[in-house]
Amino acid sequence: MAGRNDFVVFGLGKFGRSVAETLAYNGKEVLAIDIKEEVIQDVADLVTHAVQADVTDGDALKALGIGNFDVAVVAISNNLQASIMATILAKELGVPYVLAKAQNEIHKRVLEKVGADKVIFPEREIGTRIANNLISENFIDYIELSIDHSIVEIEVVDEWVSKTLKELNMRANYGINVMAIRKGEEITITPGADFVLQASDVLVVIGSNEDLRKINVIKKDNYDK
Amino acid sequence: MAGRNDFVVFGLGKFGRSVAETLAYNGKEVLAIDIKEEVIQDVADLVTHAVQADVTDGDALKALGIGNFDVAVVAISNNLQASIMATILAKELGVPYVLAKAQNEIHKRVLEKVGADKVIFPEREIGTRIANNLISENFIDYIELSIDHSIVEIEVVDEWVSKTLKELNMRANYGINVMAIRKGEEITITPGADFVLQASDVLVVIGSNEDLRKINVIKKDNYDK
Ligand SMILES: Nc1ncnc2c1ncn2[C@@H]1O[C@H](COP(=O)(O)OP(=O)(O)OP(=O)(O)O)[C@@H](O)[C@H]1O
Ligand SMILES: Nc1ncnc2c1ncn2[C@@H]1O[C@H](COP(=O)(O)OP(=O)(O)OP(=O)(O)O)[C@@H](O)[C@H]1O
Ligand SMILES: [Ca+2]
Ligand SMILES: [Ca+2]
Ligand SMILES: [Ca+2]
Ligand SMILES: [Ca+2]
Repeated sequence: MAGRNDFVVFGLGKFGRSVAETLAYNGKEVLAIDIKEEVIQDVADLVTHAVQADVTDGDALKALGIGNFDVAVVAISNNLQASIMATILAKELGVPYVLAKAQNEIHKRVLEKVGADKVIFPEREIGTRIANNLISENFIDYIELSIDHSIVEIEVVDEWVSKTLKELNMRANYGINVMAIRKGEEITITPGADFVLQASDVLVVIGSNEDLRKINVIKKDNYDK
Repeated sequence: MAGRNDFVVFGLGKFGRSVAETLAYNGKEVLAIDIKEEVIQDVADLVTHAVQADVTDGDALKALGIGNFDVAVVAISNNLQASIMATILAKELGVPYVLAKAQNEIHKRVLEKVGADKVIFPEREIGTRIANNLISENFIDYIELSIDHSIVEIEVVDEWVSKTLKELNMRANYGINVMAIRKGEEITITPGADFVLQASDVLVVIGSNEDLRKINVIKKDNYDK
């Protein structure tokens, strides 16, 4: 059977719960395990199975058949011992892919040492993203492609309204490429040169971070007038 | 003076710390406030000012000149009272933009009622993203453009290796548009028709979610062979 179908989520805090819910919503089998009975009751309707157990209890995990799962998500970060033990046990029981959430760099290093296949810092990732959005007011969302290139969603600057892409010639004037334009939920992919911009449009552009910062400055100067 | 320059971050948990650090790294003035002295000591070197205070203490916030900041980030979610009070006080003291982190929908509604300009669920956002990445194994990162269109980074499928974009004709065959190709840190924006794909390349593509899911299925079938 292709793909990953059976997921176990250890710890149903804000992050674990969101992972479990999204997986289940997409038709995956999801077993949710948390030490707190009220947490389990709260997620029971959202996942395939929800069981109250201590993830540091190897016998309990074995009895739950954890070894048969394709992926284990260890979503506990404040209880380091629980996070590390759950990772060790999941790998020992034979889970091929264990993704674990870490609290800090030291925690990450330990998790990797004991066999985690991927360690992430959810709050840090989103914190960086939100901070960048706060600095660059017209950046709505972005992907960092590399150290110096990004894809960003930007709002239309006042001077661009009612102009065509040809008139604006973004590539020559700003060094950026317009990949798509969004009007509400309607998307135009690789819009033509005669596309006329409206104030409410959102442009999806790709460019170097340096050039992208420059457009943002244009927008900011606008605010000051 | 254009833009936002003065930021105050209430609560330096994992999320607040990351926001504060990123802002300071980008040259912004950042005041960090947390009730725990050890947290303040820990972030002191990363931000402009770090002060130990209870964010529910209006006099303390007033004395710190909170009203002069451009943005307040309320990064406390487990202590609902502190989160709500900090939001109320920041708005009362005149902060133009207050972004607050919420624990759940009810918390969000209260924060909006008391004046938060933006309420976010950091763990939920990243949880959804990670779950989608776990399901779609060759999706590295993505932006949801709308309900049914996304930009995703995908790995090169075996059959694509050593072929040109012209030969593959992704738009006709898969309904997707290649916006950029990444080789390590080197990016080629809107690659030409004669670009030859290599196994380690990462394609940045835009398309409907339906078409994007189809490429992913191609990749999964590959694994089974
Ligand atoms: N030994 C354990 N066995 C099972 N579940 C546990 C164990 N220790 C903690 N948990 C559960 O893990 C969940 C996440 O706890 P933690 O305090 O680490 O959250 P967190 O990393 O701050 O999560 P988030 O930010 O996603 O809310 C909680 O619901 C908690 O009950
Ligand atoms: N009344 C208060 N005044 C100042 N700081 C506070 C107050 N209450 C909590 N904090 C601080 O807020 C920070 C975040 O706490 P909380 O437990 O809400 O974290 P969280 O939302 O789970 O954060 P994260 O997931 O980002 O680590 C902690 O460092 C805590 O000391
Ligand atoms: Ca399976
Ligand atoms: Ca958290
Ligand atoms: Ca200012
Ligand atoms: Ca927490």
